Amino acid sequence: MNGTSHEGPVVVTGGAGAIGSYLVRELLAAGREVRVVDNLSGGRRAHLPPDGTEGLSFIVADLKEPARYASAFDGAAELWHFAANTDIRKGSKDPKLDFEDGAVGTYVVLEEARRHDVGRAVYASSSVVYGFPSVFPTPEEYGPLEPQSPYAAAKLAGEALFSAYAYTHGLRSYLFRFANIIGPNMTHGVLFDFFEKLRADPSRLEVLGDGRQSKSYLRTEDCIAAMRLAVERCDRPVNLFNLGTADRTPVREIAEKVVAAHGGTARIEFTGGSQGWVGDVPQQLLAIDRILALGWRPRWSSGEAIDRTIADMIAERRAGA
Amino acid sequence: MNGTSHEGPVVVTGGAGAIGSYLVRELLAAGREVRVVDNLSGGRRAHLPPDGTEGLSFIVADLKEPARYASAFDGAAELWHFAANTDIRKGSKDPKLDFEDGAVGTYVVLEEARRHDVGRAVYASSSVVYGFPSVFPTPEEYGPLEPQSPYAAAKLAGEALFSAYAYTHGLRSYLFRFANIIGPNMTHGVLFDFFEKLRADPSRLEVLGDGRQSKSYLRTEDCIAAMRLAVERCDRPVNLFNLGTADRTPVREIAEKVVAAHGGTARIEFTGGSQGWVGDVPQQLLAIDRILALGWRPRWSSGEAIDRTIADMIAERRAGA
Repeated sequence: MNGTSHEGPVVVTGGAGAIGSYLVRELLAAGREVRVVDNLSGGRRAHLPPDGTEGLSFIVADLKEPARYASAFDGAAELWHFAANTDIRKGSKDPKLDFEDGAVGTYVVLEEARRHDVGRAVYASSSVVYGFPSVFPTPEEYGPLEPQSPYAAAKLAGEALFSAYAYTHGLRSYLFRFANIIGPNMTHGVLFDFFEKLRADPSRLEVLGDGRQSKSYLRTEDCIAAMRLAVERCDRPVNLFNLGTADRTPVREIAEKVVAAHGGTARIEFTGGSQGWVGDVPQQLLAIDRILALGWRPRWSSGEAIDRTIADMIAERRAGA
Repeated sequence: MNGTSHEGPVVVTGGAGAIGSYLVRELLAAGREVRVVDNLSGGRRAHLPPDGTEGLSFIVADLKEPARYASAFDGAAELWHFAANTDIRKGSKDPKLDFEDGAVGTYVVLEEARRHDVGRAVYASSSVVYGFPSVFPTPEEYGPLEPQSPYAAAKLAGEALFSAYAYTHGLRSYLFRFANIIGPNMTHGVLFDFFEKLRADPSRLEVLGDGRQSKSYLRTEDCIAAMRLAVERCDRPVNLFNLGTADRTPVREIAEKVVAAHGGTARIEFTGGSQGWVGDVPQQLLAIDRILALGWRPRWSSGEAIDRTIADMIAERRAGA
């Protein structure tokens, strides 16, 4: 990948999160100037290099308060928008989290990007926009989209806004529908939940649903590599890609791996039902032909990504994180 | 159609608009109690039966101020949500109109419906959610959806919200992707614009684009009949239908018909370009198999709908409307 056509500062919302902070480090290593905007609701300052790191600036701000972060867009070339509620279950009980904070935040940050003539905008969308698809692996062309949760609705609303800004205001858009992205520094998700449960009670592991929910897990490194490649290579007004692995892993298998990593003594208990919770999408496998056609290959399969992330989490906890 | 399973008051947002007010009259004629919520930004009080009409109440309120209209939801059985910006071009210049007023308004009104345990929610969406489709006629399953305007993005965001509320909160949803709906009392759209232009200057008619934009025009009566049939017959969590005619009409033909109705002397001038304006979707023809399968048939073709509406508009203007 050569970066010559992509100079100029990059604004990263949610840049203190697990995925955003990985991108920030990669961009800094590539010599880019990076401006992080994060309200630290899910992200952590410690995920990023320290204050004073060359090329990095950090603004603690909510996206709905543009006056606090508008300066980050001065002369910016790209927006990478990761900031969002990450707890689908919580959003189903409190609709404010996804629409008012999420979709409205997306709108406000796009308005800033437009006002500052940013050229490219990258969006971390989700495979949950497909609802319960009837086709597996699910291609980008699948429809109709029936979001099952406020979280999924906010992601689809975000995609719609990016598309409109691309066609109306020339803000070239890159939309990525993520499988489950896992890696270092996670503060939510099935692996995080399992670790927390075993910390609270090492004798048993409760699994929401019947354990047959089966999804694709992609490592953060592979995810970011795919995104950077697509931004480098593609120049349609809207560039949409599924990002996942070619395989998927049942929740039962994840539970068994986590229990084994904790000494193998915990009893696994399933709450039952095909859905883990209201809004859960139990079956997820994305068609990734589009991103494969650009030459990207995931380094780790879904099962390997889980093994590697369990190892990361054990190391993080030993280090006292 | 029998209404026995659909008793209880109906809240109609945008009920003073051209389409909403037609529905209101139909519901009143069927003996339903109707509560209109409209901020009169596009709608007109005169489109509705007068104050004191049995079964009708009217609240002037913006959807973002739920305290002003929450009472309309007391004991309500259904929400029909028509309120929206109707000027796609204006929305492309002022993004506030579609997202802040439209999508946020949709969210706020859905929250009221949820809080009041409304059973059914009906949404006036639009064929513009398809963006520039590559398949004609375009089926409901078409994807990916790439909205070309803030208006289209707000409509898709609205669909996403209705779907999430259906699956998360049990608010059964009916989503209708409209072709161009035309009929009495219109205050916007291509026919309205042409009449206004000829009133200002009877010697010439400026047509945006090259005149080859071609879309399907459906009469309000046919549109409302289809919606009521689908609500009566369908009970999936989300029920999605295209609504249009099987034919389409080029803008050039509409211009010729309007000029002929004005005496045939005006010169038609095209501004050129395949798109009428930024955000315009120049080619639109919807697959209507789903709604036809319920037994609905449009009484008027696209061309007939235009003829009939031109006659309505001439009569309205003669009556001094």
